[in-house]
Amino acid sequence: MSAETGARGRERVARAALSRLMEPSDWVGLALVAAAGPQDALRIATGVLAAGRRLQEDLAGLLGRRPENEPGRMLAEALERWAPRVKDLAPERDLATIARFGGTLVVPGDGLWPAALADLQLGAPLCLWVRGRAGDGIPLQEQAVALVGSRDSTGFGNAVTADLATGLVQRGCHVVSGGAYGIDAQAHRSALAAAGEGQGPATLAVMACGLDRYYPAGNEELLRAVAARGLLIAEVPLGSAPTRWRFLQRNRRIAALAGATVVVEARWRSGALNTAHHAAELGRPVGAVPGSVYSANSAGTHRLLRDGSAVCVTGAAGAAELAGPVDAARQDGAGRQEPPADHDGLGVEELLLLDALPVRQGVPVEKLAVVAGLPVQRVLAGLGRLELGALAVQDATGWRRGPRR
Amino acid sequence: MSAETGARGRERVARAALSRLMEPSDWVGLALVAAAGPQDALRIATGVLAAGRRLQEDLAGLLGRRPENEPGRMLAEALERWAPRVKDLAPERDLATIARFGGTLVVPGDGLWPAALADLQLGAPLCLWVRGRAGDGIPLQEQAVALVGSRDSTGFGNAVTADLATGLVQRGCHVVSGGAYGIDAQAHRSALAAAGEGQGPATLAVMACGLDRYYPAGNEELLRAVAARGLLIAEVPLGSAPTRWRFLQRNRRIAALAGATVVVEARWRSGALNTAHHAAELGRPVGAVPGSVYSANSAGTHRLLRDGSAVCVTGAAGAAELAGPVDAARQDGAGRQEPPADHDGLGVEELLLLDALPVRQGVPVEKLAVVAGLPVQRVLAGLGRLELGALAVQDATGWRRGPRR
Repeated sequence: MSAETGARGRERVARAALSRLMEPSDWVGLALVAAAGPQDALRIATGVLAAGRRLQEDLAGLLGRRPENEPGRMLAEALERWAPRVKDLAPERDLATIARFGGTLVVPGDGLWPAALADLQLGAPLCLWVRGRAGDGIPLQEQAVALVGSRDSTGFGNAVTADLATGLVQRGCHVVSGGAYGIDAQAHRSALAAAGEGQGPATLAVMACGLDRYYPAGNEELLRAVAARGLLIAEVPLGSAPTRWRFLQRNRRIAALAGATVVVEARWRSGALNTAHHAAELGRPVGAVPGSVYSANSAGTHRLLRDGSAVCVTGAAGAAELAGPVDAARQDGAGRQEPPADHDGLGVEELLLLDALPVRQGVPVEKLAVVAGLPVQRVLAGLGRLELGALAVQDATGWRRGPRR
Repeated sequence: MSAETGARGRERVARAALSRLMEPSDWVGLALVAAAGPQDALRIATGVLAAGRRLQEDLAGLLGRRPENEPGRMLAEALERWAPRVKDLAPERDLATIARFGGTLVVPGDGLWPAALADLQLGAPLCLWVRGRAGDGIPLQEQAVALVGSRDSTGFGNAVTADLATGLVQRGCHVVSGGAYGIDAQAHRSALAAAGEGQGPATLAVMACGLDRYYPAGNEELLRAVAARGLLIAEVPLGSAPTRWRFLQRNRRIAALAGATVVVEARWRSGALNTAHHAAELGRPVGAVPGSVYSANSAGTHRLLRDGSAVCVTGAAGAAELAGPVDAARQDGAGRQEPPADHDGLGVEELLLLDALPVRQGVPVEKLAVVAGLPVQRVLAGLGRLELGALAVQDATGWRRGPRR
C-alpha cells in the first residue's frame, strides 16, 4: 500500500496489527507499545524480538511494581495470549479493506486523533477504525454529548432521547452513542434527522465489533445511515465479533469521546450505568434523566441521581451545558417561562396588605389596619404602592383588590 | 380559668394574647418576648408599660444593630402595628374555646413543646394551638417526614404520595403536611388509612388559619379526621384567616417540625419549594421525587434535583432514611432485587472465555484460545472454573456454553 510507506505508514501498519493481536485495554500490551513503540512492540508480540532487561524495567514502571505484577511473568503470559492470533495477522489487507469501506485508520499523532482520548492515559486505544464523514473531523469533546440507555427503552425514554438529540444537534452538538437497540438507536436516528447538510457528522456510533458488520442486525439500516452521514468508530479491527468484554470497553470509549454522558433510561443494573461510571472516572460530567418512580427503566437513572453521581437533566439545554461552555445565543429558557405572580417583588407589609384587601366590597383604611396588623400610616403608604401596581383600587366604599391578578 | 392560674398559667395567657397581636415571624415582637418575657412583652405591646433603656438595648442586641434597625423606631412602629388589635384581645376566651374543641395551647417549656422548633431560634413560634391526639405527644423530628407538593397534583403525584405516606407510617414515621388540596390531602389521607390504633398521631396538619375553621372547605371531612386521629397545629389563634403571609410562615413550621421534607410534585414556582428552602435553611435534609420530564408538575422537583438542593427520593425507605437513623429491621431493599447476571463475579479471562464459547456446537480448546485471545493453559484453567459454575460444558465435539444463563 503506497499510503502506508515511510515511518508514519509503518507505524499505522503496526498499530493495525496490534489491534488484532490484543484485546481492548490489554494493559501489558498497551504498556509494551508505550515503552517500545508500536513497531518494536509488534516484533516482540510476534516473537521476532525479545524484551531486554531495560525494557522489562520500563514495563514494570508503567504497570506498577506489585508482587503479582512481576514484569517478566506478565509479559510471558501476554505473549502466550497473543501467540494463537499471530498467524492471522494481515494488517495491510485490513487497511485496504477499511479503505474499500470508505473508511480509514486513525492513530495517535494523526490530525484526526481525538484529543479527548488523552484522559485515558495508558488505557487509550491503540488506534481507531473509522467509517463515515471522517474528513469533517471527529467532534471535540466540548461539542459531543453521549446519550445512552436501555436497549428495552420505553415510549417515554424514546421521546426524551429524540428531544435531547434534536435539541443537541440544533445547538451545534454531536450525539455519541453505541449503536444498540433502544435509546442508542433513537439517539442516532434523531440526530441524523435533525442535522442539516454541511454540519459535520451529527452522530457517532462507537461499535464493539469490526466495522465490516452491522450489529445488532436490526439496526443495519440505521448504522448504514450513520456511516453515510455520521461516523462509525471501533477500536477492534474488521472481522471482530462483539463480545461482552468488547462491549464493556466500548462503553469506556463512548465516555471518553464525549464531553458529558447523559443516561436517559437505565434499569437498576444496566450497561448504561457502566458508561456513566467510566465518564465519572474520567472526571467528565454525568447527567441522568428523571422518570416515573414506577418505571423499572428509570431505577438506574434515579440511582445515579440519589447517590449524587449524576445531575438531573430534563432537556437539551442542560445536556449541552454539561459538555462544555454554553453558547448563550443558542440557550433556551425552557421551564423558566411561568409568568410572574402578582405578589412577586412585594415586601412583607405589602403582602399583609394585599391579603387583607377584600375582592369585591371596598373597606376603610382603619379596617385594613386591623386585618393586616399594620399601623394606619403604613397602610396608607402600602396602598399607594399597591395602587401604582394596579393591585389595589379605591372606590366610594373604600379599598379593594385591583384588576391585576 | 382554673387551669391558667399560677406563673405558668399567666405565661400561657400572655402567649395566647401575643399570638393574636403579632403576625407569625414578627421579629420585633419575638425579640420583645425573648428580652422581656411574655407577660411584660404583652404589657408593653398593649401600652400598659413602656420599654426602658436597658430593654431597648437588649432588643437592639437581638435584632442586630444596623442603621435601619434603630430599636426605638422599630419598637414604636411595632406598637403602632399592634395597637389596632389590642381591643380584640380575649385570651382566656380563646383558651376556653380551644379546650371546647378538645384542643390545647402548647408553649415553650411544656412537655409537649417540640424540641425540633429550637432550630428556629428567635423565629420559633410564640405558641402552638393544637387539636387532636396531643396526649400521645407531638412526634420527634427523627420520626416525622413532611410530604408536600402541588395543590393541582397529578394521578402520578397522588399515587407516589399514597405509597410514601403508607410506607412511612408502616416504618413508624409520622407524616407532616399542610392540609391543602392535592399532595397535602393525599398525604394526610393515606397516613390515616395506614395507621393502626395505638400508634400515636399518624399525621400532622400544620394550618395557616385558626383551628376553629377547616380550610380549604373541600378538605373539611379530611381535616376533621386528622383532628380525631392525628394532630391539627396552628401558630395563629382561633378565628384567624389564612392569609398569604401566614401560608408562607406555615411552610416554615412544616419544615421545622419534620426531620426531612420531601417534595413530591411541584411546578417551577410552587409553595412546596418554599417549604423545601426553609428545610434547607434549617439544615434539614430535603428530598424530591422525580417524575416525567414532560410533566409541568415535576419541573419544580427536577429543579431541586438539578441544583443539588434535594436528594432523589423514589420510595418510603429513602424518605424515612432522610429524617433520621434507619431502623434496619424495617428497611426494605426495594429496587435492589434484580437477579445476579451469569457473568457477575467473573474475571476478565473468564469473561473473554465465556464470550468465546459457542452456544450449540462444541469447539476444541485450541480454537477457544484463538477466539478468546488467551493461552491454551489459561483456557483450560478458565474452562474448569466456568464448568464449576455450569457456564461451560464439555461434550464429544469440545466445549460450549453451559445451561446456566
